[in-house]
Amino acid sequence: MLTLAGLGLFDEKDVTLRGIEAAKAADKVYIELYTSVWHGKEKLEQLIGKDIEILGRSGMEQGSEKIVKEAKDKDVVVFVPGDPLIATTHTILIEEAKKLGIKLQIIHNASIISAVCETGLHVYKFGASATVPFREKTGGKLPESVYETLKKNKKNDLHTLLLLDIVPEGGMSATEAIQIMSSLEEKKGDGMFTDETEVVVYARAGSDEPLIAFGTLAEMKNRDFGEAPMVMIVPGRLHFTERGFLEKIGK
Amino acid sequence: MLTLAGLGLFDEKDVTLRGIEAAKAADKVYIELYTSVWHGKEKLEQLIGKDIEILGRSGMEQGSEKIVKEAKDKDVVVFVPGDPLIATTHTILIEEAKKLGIKLQIIHNASIISAVCETGLHVYKFGASATVPFREKTGGKLPESVYETLKKNKKNDLHTLLLLDIVPEGGMSATEAIQIMSSLEEKKGDGMFTDETEVVVYARAGSDEPLIAFGTLAEMKNRDFGEAPMVMIVPGRLHFTERGFLEKIGK
Repeated sequence: MLTLAGLGLFDEKDVTLRGIEAAKAADKVYIELYTSVWHGKEKLEQLIGKDIEILGRSGMEQGSEKIVKEAKDKDVVVFVPGDPLIATTHTILIEEAKKLGIKLQIIHNASIISAVCETGLHVYKFGASATVPFREKTGGKLPESVYETLKKNKKNDLHTLLLLDIVPEGGMSATEAIQIMSSLEEKKGDGMFTDETEVVVYARAGSDEPLIAFGTLAEMKNRDFGEAPMVMIVPGRLHFTERGFLEKIGK
Repeated sequence: MLTLAGLGLFDEKDVTLRGIEAAKAADKVYIELYTSVWHGKEKLEQLIGKDIEILGRSGMEQGSEKIVKEAKDKDVVVFVPGDPLIATTHTILIEEAKKLGIKLQIIHNASIISAVCETGLHVYKFGASATVPFREKTGGKLPESVYETLKKNKKNDLHTLLLLDIVPEGGMSATEAIQIMSSLEEKKGDGMFTDETEVVVYARAGSDEPLIAFGTLAEMKNRDFGEAPMVMIVPGRLHFTERGFLEKIGK
């Protein structure tokens, strides 16, 4: 059997009882940590009483066949950050397993996609989300599709969740994301991301020290939001209860 | 301190270690079960070694002040289905606690909002979501805003997640939601929900027996999808990898 188990948002305490149980019973346990910032591999190993092998991007993408074959006559658990299958790269495992007729189990967990409601923004008012990539990854090109997504959502009065990129060295800060979005605004000029635009920064979701910051870009662009992971939301039209909540809770 | 802890999708095994730990250490533990279908209160009581008091809708909405005051000099945990704060009713607790200067902790967990990616649909292609209410609740009126949301999303090639209503007697089936949506189509006539429209039904997320069903309305409208909880997705334009996944995984 192949089990894909979510790690949740922050550390080993975010794993569910179902996830711990599956890993304890497993013959082999893998962990994928390149799609998100997550802490606690060593403590998780202590909790389940066995070693966990780290899967790099190539291990997940080129090694999927090997992992799935291993699951033919062994119980294999693959831990992934957040909720499984949010990162489309994980669907490879499911398709391979289905092809070989291997039993599958998905253990869900918290994802930033829903955790973001801690900001008081209403879940049904989020439009399509987008990821802001590091400039190094796009060869210096600006991610125009992100701006287009924002524009479409704004037109429909919807919120835009901007997920921030990650590299092995760490996650993007909201400050860097603001710079990239501001460069896009300069280029496109449709007034989607100006000094008056209000944004929400939500950092370290699920940790003991989460931060919810709310303000105009002019107020936010020089702020230090601390350590990654973080996301940025560009709200559509705010309902008065959303604004009230943000003004009370946001720091 | 007031802790709002997510219960996850299905039963007590979906609770995180952080949630169990908080409840074990708490002076008082409440549970809210009216916003979702969730199983396992008794087993959760065994796990944490104490009784859990059930909060009805009135207990949550009118009793919030009492709960928050109790959290002034006691550790109070309130368990809620899925990920906290997805149901806007829970934000009342946060605002009351903030007003009284009471320390707050949010323990995130799995939500249907992200679990839905188990269907292979890409998370960034979901537009705004909507809830299909029981006809009894709307005085027989059709929920036209749901149709409007669907229309906007379709125009932007985005997927629409339809959450299905719940009453104390149980959750709505996709079959009933299809009937309501079809009546809306009859009334509005914009071709958003016809016999040729493809839909995905995702039932019993997080359980040992989840169902992912994919087909046209003509194929789906007379099917029995089993027990609630379930959701229905009306996809926008499907990426070929999404279609490939659904055709392989969907039953």
